[in-house]
Amino acid sequence: MIKIVLLGAGNVATHLYKVFKEASNIEVVQWYNRNLKAIEMYKNEVDITDDVNALIEADVYIIAISDDAIEALSTSLPFENRLVVHTSGSARLYDIDQKHYRGVFYPLQTFSKDVDLDFTTVPICIETLRKKDFKLLETIGESLGCKTFKVNPKQRPALHLAAVFVNNFTNQIYRIAHEITEKQGAEFDILKPLIAETARKVQEVSPYLAQTGPAKRNDKKTIKRHLKLLDNPHHEDVYNLMTESIKKTHGR
Amino acid sequence: MIKIVLLGAGNVATHLYKVFKEASNIEVVQWYNRNLKAIEMYKNEVDITDDVNALIEADVYIIAISDDAIEALSTSLPFENRLVVHTSGSARLYDIDQKHYRGVFYPLQTFSKDVDLDFTTVPICIETLRKKDFKLLETIGESLGCKTFKVNPKQRPALHLAAVFVNNFTNQIYRIAHEITEKQGAEFDILKPLIAETARKVQEVSPYLAQTGPAKRNDKKTIKRHLKLLDNPHHEDVYNLMTESIKKTHGR
Ligand SMILES: NC(=O)c1ccc[n+]([C@@H]2O[C@H](COP(=O)([O-])OP(=O)(O)OC[C@H]3O[C@@H](n4cnc5c(N)ncnc54)[C@H](OP(=O)(O)O)[C@@H]3O)[C@@H](O)[C@H]2O)c1
Ligand SMILES: NC(=O)c1ccc[n+]([C@@H]2O[C@H](COP(=O)([O-])OP(=O)(O)OC[C@H]3O[C@@H](n4cnc5c(N)ncnc54)[C@H](OP(=O)(O)O)[C@@H]3O)[C@@H](O)[C@H]2O)c1
Repeated sequence: MIKIVLLGAGNVATHLYKVFKEASNIEVVQWYNRNLKAIEMYKNEVDITDDVNALIEADVYIIAISDDAIEALSTSLPFENRLVVHTSGSARLYDIDQKHYRGVFYPLQTFSKDVDLDFTTVPICIETLRKKDFKLLETIGESLGCKTFKVNPKQRPALHLAAVFVNNFTNQIYRIAHEITEKQGAEFDILKPLIAETARKVQEVSPYLAQTGPAKRNDKKTIKRHLKLLDNPHHEDVYNLMTESIKKTHGR
Repeated sequence: MIKIVLLGAGNVATHLYKVFKEASNIEVVQWYNRNLKAIEMYKNEVDITDDVNALIEADVYIIAISDDAIEALSTSLPFENRLVVHTSGSARLYDIDQKHYRGVFYPLQTFSKDVDLDFTTVPICIETLRKKDFKLLETIGESLGCKTFKVNPKQRPALHLAAVFVNNFTNQIYRIAHEITEKQGAEFDILKPLIAETARKVQEVSPYLAQTGPAKRNDKKTIKRHLKLLDNPHHEDVYNLMTESIKKTHGR
């Protein structure tokens, strides 16, 4: 049985708690949050606390709190030489106080407390200083049915940055498409199968090979017609930059 | 039985042929292409031709050829007062010679000849001049199991433009993410579940509500760190513009 103390009660901690509970070889022996209210509803199934001085012994302490608060909380932990990890894509491993064995257990996915998710599809990016700690975190990831990946201190921030592109920026592209269709009273719903298919395609072929359309073909006539249709200067900027980007990639 | 003559042998025509063949109330009575080679393999199951003067009678002639060639081919058809439609998102209905009854049967999806697709998920955007023609095209779409949508001459180009955003531009965002991860020797595969989840989320909630991340939070520290990581000026431009775009949308 791997004993875990979970720290934090946000999106990630809540999802982790739920999947840890289901895993046969994992026990959440305690759940900490600075305010108890957020986890009070779980008090009948797990030991809860808002006092770092009451923390009990465990194989690993998983800090899933806001990036900026990781350092201070790790320092405030009243013990040393135990494995303490955070779940952030961008905080440094060294943000954890050096009195601990340090690591990162970064689930590369977008979590909202109230949106269910098949956790077995979540890739876990692991960074540690000791091989032994890597093995333990790997076992935890695998116990959840996840694929695990060993990453280094340069790869994790790169993955986090790339995640902002494929998640936030892609979502904003959807938003602009929503604005464009709404303007003409056309239904955004009509675009949803295309959104799904575009994401599905790159599960199998590279985005390079998956590309099609006027920019790749350098179809000046269609591009010109599109720019004429766009009456929002900001949408035009995005259109122009993404068209340039595609041309650059495909050597036009 | 609805009798269809199909013209063209590219991505769309090939997909249409295959699904028409399966539909119980549709018969492809003839398949035309300017070069026979592309459709020769089907000659045992359908009448094929490369001669517009050999075209036989049908309820509708579906022209699925390159946008630029639609006008000339429609003019060259040696008959009049029959329903002739094209499948383009951007060509005008009026690109079809006025000697015909004119219409558009635009399947809003991305097609590649060799990529299979569940056609029942494809939305069909229909534009006609006569109500009667709309009904017929609607019946054809429904016979394929598709949702059909009546669109007007302003909505269809807007949808096509929005499709370029959610398909080509999104795909280019994936490509940049690929470049960023590759640079650090990290696997692009790790991003695939996030790509899938991002597309899945907007099937249910609007892109506005689905948005998260540093730009929406106006988290200057993370944005600064990301910009420092990006050593490709073009990636920086995309990062800056998309970050601005999100801030604009979310009132930052
Ligand atoms: N959300 C995602 O999609 C996602 C994905 C991968 C990784 N991550 C990472 O996972 C970690 C948690 O993210 P999240 O989205 O779960 O955060 P969240 O939902 O915003 O929750 C933040 C948690 O941090 C606690 N907290 C904030 N400031 C604190 C402080 N000064 N001292 C102690 N606790 C404090 C909050 O406590 P209160 O309840 O008292 O406010 C809350 O429990 C972050 O490192 C994030 O980068 C997030
Ligand atoms: N691909 C998509 O994802 C998609 C989605 C929705 C709508 N559409 C629309 O569907 C139509 C066809 O697109 P596609 O992707 O199927 O095209 P495609 O794969 O590029 O095939 C083009 C077809 O047009 C024929 N053609 C080209 N120039 C011609 C000419 N001057 N005279 C006669 N035939 C000519 C070609 O004949 P050869 O075989 O002899 O070269 C070929 O059969 C276009 O209007 C397009 O906008 C495409």
